[in-house]
Amino acid sequence: MVNKNMNFPKRTAVKSHRIVIVPRYSETDQGGVAHNSVYAVWFEMGRTELLRVNGMAYKDLEESGVFFVVARLTIKYHRPAKYDEKLQLETTCTKVTIAKIEHDYKLTRCSDGIILAEGSTTLACVAADGKIRRIPEFMYPQECTVFKNATGDCREYKDNN
Amino acid sequence: MVNKNMNFPKRTAVKSHRIVIVPRYSETDQGGVAHNSVYAVWFEMGRTELLRVNGMAYKDLEESGVFFVVARLTIKYHRPAKYDEKLQLETTCTKVTIAKIEHDYKLTRCSDGIILAEGSTTLACVAADGKIRRIPEFMYPQECTVFKNATGDCREYKDNN
Amino acid sequence: MVNKNMNFPKRTAVKSHRIVIVPRYSETDQGGVAHNSVYAVWFEMGRTELLRVNGMAYKDLEESGVFFVVARLTIKYHRPAKYDEKLQLETTCTKVTIAKIEHDYKLTRCSDGIILAEGSTTLACVAADGKIRRIPEFMYPQECTVFKNATGDCREYKDNN
Amino acid sequence: MVNKNMNFPKRTAVKSHRIVIVPRYSETDQGGVAHNSVYAVWFEMGRTELLRVNGMAYKDLEESGVFFVVARLTIKYHRPAKYDEKLQLETTCTKVTIAKIEHDYKLTRCSDGIILAEGSTTLACVAADGKIRRIPEFMYPQECTVFKNATGDCREYKDNN
Repeated sequence: MVNKNMNFPKRTAVKSHRIVIVPRYSETDQGGVAHNSVYAVWFEMGRTELLRVNGMAYKDLEESGVFFVVARLTIKYHRPAKYDEKLQLETTCTKVTIAKIEHDYKLTRCSDGIILAEGSTTLACVAADGKIRRIPEFMYPQECTVFKNATGDCREYKDNN
Repeated sequence: MVNKNMNFPKRTAVKSHRIVIVPRYSETDQGGVAHNSVYAVWFEMGRTELLRVNGMAYKDLEESGVFFVVARLTIKYHRPAKYDEKLQLETTCTKVTIAKIEHDYKLTRCSDGIILAEGSTTLACVAADGKIRRIPEFMYPQECTVFKNATGDCREYKDNN
Repeated sequence: MVNKNMNFPKRTAVKSHRIVIVPRYSETDQGGVAHNSVYAVWFEMGRTELLRVNGMAYKDLEESGVFFVVARLTIKYHRPAKYDEKLQLETTCTKVTIAKIEHDYKLTRCSDGIILAEGSTTLACVAADGKIRRIPEFMYPQECTVFKNATGDCREYKDNN
Repeated sequence: MVNKNMNFPKRTAVKSHRIVIVPRYSETDQGGVAHNSVYAVWFEMGRTELLRVNGMAYKDLEESGVFFVVARLTIKYHRPAKYDEKLQLETTCTKVTIAKIEHDYKLTRCSDGIILAEGSTTLACVAADGKIRRIPEFMYPQECTVFKNATGDCREYKDNN
């Protein structure tokens, strides 16, 4: 089901990762701050890099026929993000089920540590034809040993750790 | 507090409005569908046009020192939106309080009436300096007569109508 | 070479077309005007609608295995375009050769007829695999009768008409 | 004319700079490559970082009342840029006149050194009110000693070096 030639890890070992975001000029609007739609782009970048520290490129997943689509997105905007100021985006995988992955996001201003925004997403796993498919086993967290018997319910990182 | 020369209505009379959205090529991603971040842009367009049918241009509000910033956004993506297919976006103002406005969104595919996405936002009203300010009285719904005594709580369109 | 089931016209008959563009809030930047990258998106919309009045949807071209990629883009920005003001974009096909199509663009402010920007693009025709391919015959202008003997050079609308 | 409290350099000393660009998923389109409008965003990032290595943040320039707007943009797209592949963008300041700055851009794929795109821009210097103004003296290249007598014509890096 997944291309065997790709070099994927056995399990995911890292559940949370931080990247630096610097709002681009084109991401601002005439209100003088980053436009509200841009945060969804940043969250996606956070997920991509969380995958990468787990040994996977999303590009390779797609080439293997594993696609993730956003099924639900929530963003709480506490304070505006400004052009060219350093922000830290922390992306945490909070849940992996048989067909969905959940993440939480926290966007912090580096200069003073103030939280600018928080968010969460639910991703669904689909095949190239857009149909729902099982999440590949290697995307499950390392510490999770109950997968084989799982009924598709969940394994909460938060509870386990 | 609000520029008196602007020609704003006495009250808002229309609580729900529909516009047609046709996904642009630049709004698609390599997954072959509209990117998840674009829906927030469409929702904003829906709000703008709902304002307009109520006799207000958001541009004029800003010039009067009344800005709305997104404080909360939720989107549920049910099915992908595709390039160049006609969609209908229904934007409904569900609640107006002393400093916040809430909207619901429903994105429907015109060809078969299937709902592709649903969402909601909470907007905060701020002044040019970014500080929270009262929502101008003319933005309250027409049928609402309890405003003067309101404590900032709410007036649910859904309950009233 | 091109899907025969698609219903394409025999030739293109319309060489110039106008659409209305209204800059979205998300298209502005903190300079208070439409961001310079957005014009390329508008030009693409202009081409799409010029195709449509000629009886073709770009979507259908892609499904037939005919893709157009931008090979060259030039934009001259004369005056800024502002949020929510009506603009007219005139798109003119200026040249069709065996593998390339050229367009000119003129963006005008509706309120006073002032030209805000001008541009031009060269598109290359490629197949699904990204390789250069011949432009389908039906994309040639109607009045052009020399195609069969053409060596891939050009047929200037401007000269012919 | 320029805020004296800002800490700007005496002259610009670096005329060319390289940054790494990694196309985001949201920057791709359904053609499977980075959308043609995104290159203008990348060029702007290149200019921003060229400024920064010269000791200036564009943010500070704006706060000092010095704005740069794109007056002309040309892009030649040689080969497509793909999602998540490392690209090198080289930005070179080629000319500084009394009211305009010109840059050249070269976008190269890191894996094989192939040039994917080339471009150039002309920027105009404007004040906060959008009116053309002189470029601050500190933005002129260090080696240029003829500025005082210049008539607004030009100083070509290419010729001088």
